[in-house]
Amino acid sequence: MEKNPLNIGIVGLGTVGIGVVDFLTTNKDLITLRAGREIRISGICAKRKNKKRELNLSRFRWISDPLTLSNEQGIDVVVELIGGQNDPAKSIIEKSLLNKKHVVTANKALIAHHGHYLAILAEEQKVSLNFEAAVAGGIPIVKILKESLSGNDISRVYGVINGTCNYILTQMENHEQDYSKIFRDAQNLGFVEKDPSLDVGGIDSAHKISIIAALAFGSRINFDNVKIKGIESISLIDITSASAMGYRIKLLGLANKSTAGISQVVEPCLVPKESLFGKLDGGTNMVMVEGNFVEKTHYIGLGAGAGPTASSIVSDLIDIARGNISSSFGQRASELEISQHVSEDLSSSFYLRFLLTDKPGTLAKLAGILGKYGISINHMRQLRHQGENAPVLIVTHPTAKISLTSAIKEISKIEICKSDPVYIRIEDL
Amino acid sequence: MEKNPLNIGIVGLGTVGIGVVDFLTTNKDLITLRAGREIRISGICAKRKNKKRELNLSRFRWISDPLTLSNEQGIDVVVELIGGQNDPAKSIIEKSLLNKKHVVTANKALIAHHGHYLAILAEEQKVSLNFEAAVAGGIPIVKILKESLSGNDISRVYGVINGTCNYILTQMENHEQDYSKIFRDAQNLGFVEKDPSLDVGGIDSAHKISIIAALAFGSRINFDNVKIKGIESISLIDITSASAMGYRIKLLGLANKSTAGISQVVEPCLVPKESLFGKLDGGTNMVMVEGNFVEKTHYIGLGAGAGPTASSIVSDLIDIARGNISSSFGQRASELEISQHVSEDLSSSFYLRFLLTDKPGTLAKLAGILGKYGISINHMRQLRHQGENAPVLIVTHPTAKISLTSAIKEISKIEICKSDPVYIRIEDL
Repeated sequence: MEKNPLNIGIVGLGTVGIGVVDFLTTNKDLITLRAGREIRISGICAKRKNKKRELNLSRFRWISDPLTLSNEQGIDVVVELIGGQNDPAKSIIEKSLLNKKHVVTANKALIAHHGHYLAILAEEQKVSLNFEAAVAGGIPIVKILKESLSGNDISRVYGVINGTCNYILTQMENHEQDYSKIFRDAQNLGFVEKDPSLDVGGIDSAHKISIIAALAFGSRINFDNVKIKGIESISLIDITSASAMGYRIKLLGLANKSTAGISQVVEPCLVPKESLFGKLDGGTNMVMVEGNFVEKTHYIGLGAGAGPTASSIVSDLIDIARGNISSSFGQRASELEISQHVSEDLSSSFYLRFLLTDKPGTLAKLAGILGKYGISINHMRQLRHQGENAPVLIVTHPTAKISLTSAIKEISKIEICKSDPVYIRIEDL
Repeated sequence: MEKNPLNIGIVGLGTVGIGVVDFLTTNKDLITLRAGREIRISGICAKRKNKKRELNLSRFRWISDPLTLSNEQGIDVVVELIGGQNDPAKSIIEKSLLNKKHVVTANKALIAHHGHYLAILAEEQKVSLNFEAAVAGGIPIVKILKESLSGNDISRVYGVINGTCNYILTQMENHEQDYSKIFRDAQNLGFVEKDPSLDVGGIDSAHKISIIAALAFGSRINFDNVKIKGIESISLIDITSASAMGYRIKLLGLANKSTAGISQVVEPCLVPKESLFGKLDGGTNMVMVEGNFVEKTHYIGLGAGAGPTASSIVSDLIDIARGNISSSFGQRASELEISQHVSEDLSSSFYLRFLLTDKPGTLAKLAGILGKYGISINHMRQLRHQGENAPVLIVTHPTAKISLTSAIKEISKIEICKSDPVYIRIEDL
């Protein structure tokens, strides 16, 4: 190899940081061959130097202040793996770009919030800001959207993009245990982020769907317009009822484009058991992209973990090593437009669950209100009593969400309704 | 847009060629935005100018001799969509590269046979030779292997990469009809290539798996070392028996790497019904890639048709328009090495079917020979008699293929065996 090595500095040495060091050392020769030059770790940096880590890092140059790395003459690329949407991650990236260093990051929160600003900065400085690892772990969905499918007019991208939620929902079904029990188990296993609302509250999926939507639709990233519903309110009864009707419940990220605008939603949905989404286990992620020429495509892989995440980071590094300096969002950042965001544009069927007093006329009353809002019932079941009351399950025919929420609001106020009604969208995909 | 357009010439205006024209005109503005410049059709060329085609092509400049296109000053890229492994396709590509024009092609036969030579030529001329559309239609597997997963040490790539075979096998199962009937139907529907051996004989899959193996393992493409078995010998009884045992039969392309070397195989395999491969319908393709850091990933999409194929061609063009000139096989072509090819390196279970005379001692004799070769039986079933004889089905425990074929050879020679034994590998994936 005649070429100079690509000198990188890694900031953040948690699971992913160590994964990247491991990858770059284990596959060193292969990477050099593929990249056309060595990718050399020329500096590492983390909060605590003496923390016990899985790899011996003593042969790498330790730099105590991350901002030093952003300044160093000898560093071509800064790999930011600290996480968190603001400082120190943000100012490290900012400073690196201002110093004309390429940046590779796995930080979805930061890209979701500051991606546009940073992409403009990278463009001005003529360097890359790459974030393949920020979405769906080892699935190369960023490059697929930016490069492989980039000529397609993409109408929708749906994904199961948070492994923790998928794990919890799968475990609830497999062990027939309630959310709180399984959630505690997952926490004890270290599967849940420190702030659980990031995972189970749907925020992590929302970060990712906002990145996906920007890439797919060529629009300026807009996290604030993601409508988010987490999985905390999913009861075991919903999971078992859905199962009895041939469905599974998955937390989906849904990005749609229509003539009215873009909608970005994160919410639990019923999906057919036999569909690809219905078959997804545990920590596996899947993204479905539909474009006007390629039609439907699906991408499946591990959504987290040191290896898959490092794989995406190294692919970003190889791109830079090869001299393939690309725009962060697949087109000139300064030309990305703010799209019209609409809250809901597709009608769909819904699964509804009510707890009703078991008196004559109750079901008629319920059906009456649904009918008033133009919602027709596909099928209805009454389950075994719970004391005085009985759970009633309904699957509707396709209906606009606005009609549904209005009907639900009215029903929740009448005295026969004994707890907050539950409604979950059915995605037939 | 300030930049000059990228001027392309299209040679070959069949389904795919027309698909490319359609894509580039329908999504013109979007493509210009994404590519950073216009991709302009500056010349088209096919055998017959006046053939009835789905699009009106009169506004494009018609060039009657494809070699003129390869010579034209104003053409930056030649898109070769004639097909066929030799001339005229080969000399058009050769000439274009020699004239420092980039080449985009969907021609798997040509790449499988001459890919190495042409990649070297492209490298010498410092232009791109891109062939995303040559493998798996709209699935961007070439770029995924060349760029996204390129740092991974890839151990295997398996794929269902011929839609016609998958369609025929699916139809046989769904309609419980024999191969010959379904094959004729598929031919009448225009689903089968003029030379059917390309599809049902497994040659098309072999072209593709040789390209995949070269990309995945960084080895010089070697079509001649693909072991090929088609689907012509698959009987309905095998499909229904496999189904009763929880399997489906799929024509798989299998590329494996071990310390011994690379193996490339195309053959029908039993796959679990519940696996992703077992669920694949009709013309859908799927490729599974396993790397040492990314672990298992799956990619699903339409494997043929104008739209998906055009999507891959346009992605190759956008790469060129953006100035991303990459090596054809993911590393310097002149450094690609000839790998050791081994015929078989993995042991697996097998499905066996024999037609045996129904006499006492027959099964014992059969089991005796299998035992002699160290093949142990997982389960065995005897089906309803066919006259004097009875079909016997066996599923073995994992065994080396060499032992199996030796045993089969011996069994086929004894008098109790009334027709050629059938054996199909079981891939538990």
